Amino acid sequence: MINASLQGVVEACRDYPEHIGKLYAGRHGVEGILMEQLIDLSREPREEIALLRHTPAAGAIGTCRYKLMEDQSEDFHRVIDVMRAHDVGYFFYIGGNDSMDTAYKVSELAKKEGLDLACTGVPKTIDNDVGDQKFELVDHTPGYGSAARYWAYITQNVEEENRGMSPSECVCVLQAMGRKAGFIPAAARLADPDRTMPLQLYLAEAGHNLESLGENVNQQLAKSGRCIVVVSEGFDVGTLGEARDGFGHIEYGASRNTVAQIVINYLNDLGLNARGQATGQVPGVLQRCTSIFASEVDIEEAYQVGRKAVEIGVTEGSGWMATILRRARTEYEAYFDKVPLEKVAGSERRMPAEWITEDGLDVTDDFVRYARPLIGNGWPAIRVEHGLQRFARLDAQLIGKKLPAYVPSKNRQ
Amino acid sequence: MINASLQGVVEACRDYPEHIGKLYAGRHGVEGILMEQLIDLSREPREEIALLRHTPAAGAIGTCRYKLMEDQSEDFHRVIDVMRAHDVGYFFYIGGNDSMDTAYKVSELAKKEGLDLACTGVPKTIDNDVGDQKFELVDHTPGYGSAARYWAYITQNVEEENRGMSPSECVCVLQAMGRKAGFIPAAARLADPDRTMPLQLYLAEAGHNLESLGENVNQQLAKSGRCIVVVSEGFDVGTLGEARDGFGHIEYGASRNTVAQIVINYLNDLGLNARGQATGQVPGVLQRCTSIFASEVDIEEAYQVGRKAVEIGVTEGSGWMATILRRARTEYEAYFDKVPLEKVAGSERRMPAEWITEDGLDVTDDFVRYARPLIGNGWPAIRVEHGLQRFARLDAQLIGKKLPAYVPSKNRQ
Repeated sequence: MINASLQGVVEACRDYPEHIGKLYAGRHGVEGILMEQLIDLSREPREEIALLRHTPAAGAIGTCRYKLMEDQSEDFHRVIDVMRAHDVGYFFYIGGNDSMDTAYKVSELAKKEGLDLACTGVPKTIDNDVGDQKFELVDHTPGYGSAARYWAYITQNVEEENRGMSPSECVCVLQAMGRKAGFIPAAARLADPDRTMPLQLYLAEAGHNLESLGENVNQQLAKSGRCIVVVSEGFDVGTLGEARDGFGHIEYGASRNTVAQIVINYLNDLGLNARGQATGQVPGVLQRCTSIFASEVDIEEAYQVGRKAVEIGVTEGSGWMATILRRARTEYEAYFDKVPLEKVAGSERRMPAEWITEDGLDVTDDFVRYARPLIGNGWPAIRVEHGLQRFARLDAQLIGKKLPAYVPSKNRQ
Repeated sequence: MINASLQGVVEACRDYPEHIGKLYAGRHGVEGILMEQLIDLSREPREEIALLRHTPAAGAIGTCRYKLMEDQSEDFHRVIDVMRAHDVGYFFYIGGNDSMDTAYKVSELAKKEGLDLACTGVPKTIDNDVGDQKFELVDHTPGYGSAARYWAYITQNVEEENRGMSPSECVCVLQAMGRKAGFIPAAARLADPDRTMPLQLYLAEAGHNLESLGENVNQQLAKSGRCIVVVSEGFDVGTLGEARDGFGHIEYGASRNTVAQIVINYLNDLGLNARGQATGQVPGVLQRCTSIFASEVDIEEAYQVGRKAVEIGVTEGSGWMATILRRARTEYEAYFDKVPLEKVAGSERRMPAEWITEDGLDVTDDFVRYARPLIGNGWPAIRVEHGLQRFARLDAQLIGKKLPAYVPSKNRQ
């Protein structure tokens, strides 16, 4: 949904011509700012900006995994220098909790250095982990509704497949993203709110391990003859996961063995309560980049959050994040507001314990009521041309540099 | 596409009331026939039969991995006994090369035993490996166009993701189905017929190994800074694949390590010509069960092949397979015909060598011209109800048994 928010920011900036003239994007996010690689978005055709709405991932301008750390004060000062050099007055930062942390620090530093820069956060993470445990600051983050729709729909398809393939392939293990927060695997339950499928969810927060998983799967097999297991990439695989730890905080896909593979191997070694075998899938980034599974509700909210951020930056000044909240009504209704960046910077929300069932294998109806409206009620209108999906094609021209070349921080990770 | 063909068979049978009264389906395919578990499809509502068109996988009646072998003559005789007991006159067998082999043998045995049974094959395999190397018996199999569309569209999405995530995640490894035939990974090229993406295809037929893959990827990284690798599950991983071999002819997903994981680990150990890392995805059965990626061309052809099979069975007698051929015209146009089951039973078509480029990393424009029309030009109309996909819901009632219980063959695998 990063692109729908980007579209919202770009289009809203046009509403404030007296405040905002040019609009630049950092190529690959903050990395582009450090390296003074700025894309002039003002020059992009309106039609291509509009197509961002249904363009997946961040291929249009690029994203990064680079977190500005406390001890990289040179980097923070470099951001300020670049902003000053290019007469930047408004800084919109789209991303998750690390990004909100960076936005907050840049906002503070700009104030300290006397730079008139309105830093505004635009939340975007499929993990839904930005915000507070009471959901008072952030009801949900843009991106989550689409990831939830992916898991609801994929689980429906896998149910057909697993029902058809059993008994020969009786256990299907699906690995969902979410190292610490279980909101993503939890969304598989939306496929089956009436609980007719032999579906078990293993959220990172639920406290299960390989042994208890093996027992639960075999109980399900005794009952149903088949089982669909959704396992979080943060699932505790114990010592079998050690080979992964040396890599530290890296993308799971680079690990020596995926969690799903460890679970599959464990189950097949353990012996199944059925004559079939366990197999599995690791959709990986497909759960965040497959545009047709995007939720129209999520897309529209991401767009509106982008617009709201511009309004906040222009009218309220620096240090806020645009947010989505929910009116306490029977029918789902979202509204947009602002929260101080300081309150959400580095926040790591988890699935509330009361939304996980006692056996740790499922989520409650309260969670279903929370998440269900976010997946929407239809297919997004992805344009098809010559048989292929037509995504936004940005020119992404870089503007001229005004500063000496960037020297990477000594402490850079 | 098995369900669209099933719909075609069911609806066409209604056109021959003088020949066909009741219509039964074997629960989980030939296994259900052996066990005399027959579903009475005649009782299913027409609306649900119509919904089969967009219902993925084979959850409606089930499928199996059970191949009737030469040395299981008891099983073949049991099939004949069940057919005779239930007064079955027409037998339609939907599946790939193994299934066509079984259909042929049942056809022959029925003749020998004096049972008036018209056995007709209905081809269905995403592998596109049923048929001849000259494409004169079978142009393509139902199921392939949808798998091809999945790979074309997913590759488009992954291109956006990889472009956005590089340089931190510079190599994206995608594992495609197809142990021996490379038609499925080849279809990733449809995403990029003009060859603007840093995309490398590793078909089982192309003769690459881990070492040459490592060299090629690093060359691509030196040139483009990133690389998308589509690797067939039949890719030669050499001795690193030994851990998988003990399992023999089983679903890849159950293997100790997926090919993608071996390739990812190999690349990260080797050292990349870039500062990022290799990650990957194994979509597994999602490539054959994700209904929204089905090709409307494929769905309609699968339906027509099912109808054609009924026409053949009723008017031509036993021993044929319905097939799809292509008129030699500028515009794509398919037509339906019959071929002797004997000619396609156990056939194992491969990607023609002339459709693979000399460097073994790509397919030719001739292949693109062949495969492009099969993916169609739009999204299938998957019905959504209450926010979820609405698939066919068959009652799947079993009819009464008339025979003693099935005793599994001693030679059963």
